[in-house]
Amino acid sequence: MPDHALRQKAAENLEAVRTKRPLIHNITNFVVINYTANALLACGASPVMAHAVEEVEEMVSLADALVLNIGTLTSSWVDAMLIAGKRANERHIPIILDPVGSGATRLRTDSAGRLIKDLSIGVVRGNASEVLSLAREGSRPKGVDTMHRVEEAEAAALSLARELNLTLAITGPIDLITDGTRTFRVLNGHELMGFVTGSGCTATALIGAFLSVDRDPVTATATALAYFGLAGERAAAHSKGPGSFQIALLDALFSMDGNTLRKGARIEG
Amino acid sequence: MPDHALRQKAAENLEAVRTKRPLIHNITNFVVINYTANALLACGASPVMAHAVEEVEEMVSLADALVLNIGTLTSSWVDAMLIAGKRANERHIPIILDPVGSGATRLRTDSAGRLIKDLSIGVVRGNASEVLSLAREGSRPKGVDTMHRVEEAEAAALSLARELNLTLAITGPIDLITDGTRTFRVLNGHELMGFVTGSGCTATALIGAFLSVDRDPVTATATALAYFGLAGERAAAHSKGPGSFQIALLDALFSMDGNTLRKGARIEG
Amino acid sequence: MPDHALRQKAAENLEAVRTKRPLIHNITNFVVINYTANALLACGASPVMAHAVEEVEEMVSLADALVLNIGTLTSSWVDAMLIAGKRANERHIPIILDPVGSGATRLRTDSAGRLIKDLSIGVVRGNASEVLSLAREGSRPKGVDTMHRVEEAEAAALSLARELNLTLAITGPIDLITDGTRTFRVLNGHELMGFVTGSGCTATALIGAFLSVDRDPVTATATALAYFGLAGERAAAHSKGPGSFQIALLDALFSMDGNTLRKGARIEG
Repeated sequence: MPDHALRQKAAENLEAVRTKRPLIHNITNFVVINYTANALLACGASPVMAHAVEEVEEMVSLADALVLNIGTLTSSWVDAMLIAGKRANERHIPIILDPVGSGATRLRTDSAGRLIKDLSIGVVRGNASEVLSLAREGSRPKGVDTMHRVEEAEAAALSLARELNLTLAITGPIDLITDGTRTFRVLNGHELMGFVTGSGCTATALIGAFLSVDRDPVTATATALAYFGLAGERAAAHSKGPGSFQIALLDALFSMDGNTLRKGARIEG
Repeated sequence: MPDHALRQKAAENLEAVRTKRPLIHNITNFVVINYTANALLACGASPVMAHAVEEVEEMVSLADALVLNIGTLTSSWVDAMLIAGKRANERHIPIILDPVGSGATRLRTDSAGRLIKDLSIGVVRGNASEVLSLAREGSRPKGVDTMHRVEEAEAAALSLARELNLTLAITGPIDLITDGTRTFRVLNGHELMGFVTGSGCTATALIGAFLSVDRDPVTATATALAYFGLAGERAAAHSKGPGSFQIALLDALFSMDGNTLRKGARIEG
Repeated sequence: MPDHALRQKAAENLEAVRTKRPLIHNITNFVVINYTANALLACGASPVMAHAVEEVEEMVSLADALVLNIGTLTSSWVDAMLIAGKRANERHIPIILDPVGSGATRLRTDSAGRLIKDLSIGVVRGNASEVLSLAREGSRPKGVDTMHRVEEAEAAALSLARELNLTLAITGPIDLITDGTRTFRVLNGHELMGFVTGSGCTATALIGAFLSVDRDPVTATATALAYFGLAGERAAAHSKGPGSFQIALLDALFSMDGNTLRKGARIEG
């Protein structure tokens, strides 16, 4: 897909979110629950946060996408994610998973693994360490934490995407998106994003919004990451540090229009 | 009550909160728990957030008002709300309920209904859909979600306030406050408020603060909503989007004095 | 320790955090979980928030300090704190406790007491009422809540620090830090800090970061409080109220360098 077509797709996806105002159901962690809700509102989507096993089936049935995030996880939240995810699968509602901390503790690694095994998940987004921890133990690459450059993680990601049959997004200075066949890179972003807690989780939530209007998980993910990264670049121009940056980032997500995104998106197909 | 008397009452209530620094006990949701605490501080009140069944009775006994909010609800939180609410009723501490998502899932609708049935609640604040979902199933109006204009919801609200024997506040572009006999409208506010997650929950918390100094739930609610809405108008003048707006809103709540509120409150009695 | 040496130590500690990027494991409350994570990032540390009993042992084993905070407490969180704390003790990872609300309810007072009894805790930080509530019931000073001035609380704090065999920090307009032998005072700070929810909890988290690079709990605590207080002073110069202040505070934590801290720290040894 030529770069100009991807930039055009980014603009269309953003405008479609603004028009459709999709309901994005999030089962997410306590750290980012406020910020990701605000980011979804700024994007034009309608967020709902709900995790009770008694209601997640009903709630997800109303939704256009389901965001699962395993930060600050406990077992009962995994139960809620599985219940919501199964209903989402029945209704063909796209699911995105953020495997926060997978690889760091057994609870996180096992929970991410179980969600991927028991559900049909469209996209997984994390850093290289989190994403590559999802490989089967035998095929798990050594030294994930030292794979600082996207290039080093790329071969492992392609293979893993094919193995898991889903789209992987490894975000960092350059974002890598692959379904095992197609591979896109997003060059937008700013280093201050690493100083805002939950900026990765926010990217995941925004991918959820884009998935609700673009059923190709690779283009939905790449265009959402370009939108988020470009907003970060624009926010940094008005920031004195990570506090003013996180606020300017919400403003930039809100004020970005399709035309600006088409011009500024740096997606390599 | 003439409009100028309501504006005067708004100023008095705000100044009374600043003087008394009431302790407001909140059992609220994870999304808004930080922002509503900050809004209460900015208003001049003293917030405490506590939801453990082991301690809510003790905590509410120290409080001047109790705020119950059913966002991100699970069953154990309903238990805590009932325990705290019963003690609050014994101590004549006013209670305000925010039925977030009532009407969307059975858990939310049933929980809101049970809190209203088992407790003596002074005020309920929500959007039209949430508030009108509280009617008994037989008397529940059809097509709540399409009642976009306050006028359409008004007859239903008056009837429901009488049925439930409490004060209802339906907030939106124009806020409607009624106890079934008296009806006030508040015209203050700004559209950016709809892009800040938990702005409705924040209104609810501020009503809690005003209830602690004004035992007439109708005037307490109307004046609190005028204060919040006017702060929103003032914040919008310093904002580039919903990020800077949510921060400017805290500043505006903090810096507003009684005189400014008296001049700017737009309450129709 | 002469004041200039303490100022030099403050600069060294801040620079050591920036260089080492210590992992700070927080088991903390829902109100402040986002803000304290952002403050730790701004300081240069790497925060992780995790409370599941299934994973806290593993998580704390990766950490350089453990922050325990009993706001929005329930029993299961105390279990997680005890499990994490015991492992931290085995690994000689320093622990700091924030006894939010101790003295206000039995759950909080008893939980703080149990954590202090069962764990080897390096530092406890709270306001005068919270800290002095930790004394055994027989030796608990009367009228804690009316001890408005640091001087009045000082004798009680020294005695309590010796009794509990740890370092106490009572924060307020002037911060008092004592291990029962040495006593330091920190004069930095700004009154707007009292209008940001969780500013005390943020001080606690930052002390955790400083403890990971300075194993003398008295100097680690005093220098962290000087850093936080000086950031508050600098933030206030750019603020219109508590909203813009809380954001400017993150910026100030981020942009402060060792040299600025050495010049601005007001620690009396």
